Amino acid sequence: MNRDALSDLMAEYGMALDEDRLEDWVELFEEICDYRVVTRENVEQNLPNVLIWCDNKNMLRDRIESYRNVNLYNPHYDRHILGPIRLSKQEGSLCTFDVSYSLFQTTLEGESRLFSVGRYHVEANVGKGRATLKSVMVIADTGTIPSLLATPI
Amino acid sequence: MNRDALSDLMAEYGMALDEDRLEDWVELFEEICDYRVVTRENVEQNLPNVLIWCDNKNMLRDRIESYRNVNLYNPHYDRHILGPIRLSKQEGSLCTFDVSYSLFQTTLEGESRLFSVGRYHVEANVGKGRATLKSVMVIADTGTIPSLLATPI
Amino acid sequence: MNRDALSDLMAEYGMALDEDRLEDWVELFEEICDYRVVTRENVEQNLPNVLIWCDNKNMLRDRIESYRNVNLYNPHYDRHILGPIRLSKQEGSLCTFDVSYSLFQTTLEGESRLFSVGRYHVEANVGKGRATLKSVMVIADTGTIPSLLATPI
Repeated sequence: MNRDALSDLMAEYGMALDEDRLEDWVELFEEICDYRVVTRENVEQNLPNVLIWCDNKNMLRDRIESYRNVNLYNPHYDRHILGPIRLSKQEGSLCTFDVSYSLFQTTLEGESRLFSVGRYHVEANVGKGRATLKSVMVIADTGTIPSLLATPI
Repeated sequence: MNRDALSDLMAEYGMALDEDRLEDWVELFEEICDYRVVTRENVEQNLPNVLIWCDNKNMLRDRIESYRNVNLYNPHYDRHILGPIRLSKQEGSLCTFDVSYSLFQTTLEGESRLFSVGRYHVEANVGKGRATLKSVMVIADTGTIPSLLATPI
Repeated sequence: MNRDALSDLMAEYGMALDEDRLEDWVELFEEICDYRVVTRENVEQNLPNVLIWCDNKNMLRDRIESYRNVNLYNPHYDRHILGPIRLSKQEGSLCTFDVSYSLFQTTLEGESRLFSVGRYHVEANVGKGRATLKSVMVIADTGTIPSLLATPI
């Protein structure tokens, strides 16, 4: 199995978001996919709350388009620092793994602060030299509530 | 030498702590092992202070058991973000390497903050597909003094 | 291509700075090299401001020597946490890639804080088992203005 492909995938995941290439970020997903953001508190208490949920690629496209059209406020730079991949399962081309993340935000005045920490629970298909996202569950330790128009984590 | 095995080992090291699977964290160590936490200040001044020191696996087990039985206060989530591995020596199956870490803590109310940064100095044996910890020295830049009942770093 | 060599290179880049082995850090560069620090704000506005610029290895040596001779104030520990490598180009032995970084500083009293986040845009030559830096552009999200005598990022 191509471990480099998974590492490349997650490196590009963070860089695409950080460079405001949100459309490129969407392209990392498969057409039939699932992206959701939950808090760790909810997961551990088996609560059903989901902060963001897109259950196919068109919903991701719509979300990014809305963001592009409406979001005129709170401009900032994102910066994702991702840890190593913990692979937990591999069945054919499908890999399941977790990656811890820290996400920092910087104002246009250049002030940086910690915004969110947590973990990505990911299912990805690894093809020839490239991997694609089948599902990403963002489990945020930090209790930030991203609004409808926030960028993805 | 299997670099992926070292990366998997350290990914699981952080994830086990972060997911409160402390018993799984202990299982990453060999029976004859050494785990200690020191501050960088002490290391650089050749001071003998050691904040935590377990010099075999049973001591690690005891420590975790004490923590499970006594620790009713200060609940929080940990999140380790680890950097890349710097391999410095390899002799047979024994690898010596360093990994920088940042550790964030989140209260149950969802507020995250930087808790500690520093470096792991690690000796690990790499067997067939799996690596085990022979020694971990946590050299903390941050001058946090973990109490007897604190979780490992 | 040897991905491990790039990972080793960047791991050592951060560790050399963090361990105050600035001379070792210089040795990671080729004789004909380029190191500069810019802010993201300037890059995105096409402004020419460069906070630090060394366009060959001797300039890097001079800079480190000045730092060693003059810098008596603001002692602190640095800690770099680097994310995964995003490889964008490979031509012969020359690799172009980006790495996100977070940089924390700790006072001698042991207080740690976030100092800077951003991205390294790197060109490196990968030889037999070892990689060398041809150019590093530090693109800092954080608007810190390192003084003439500051350590490199």
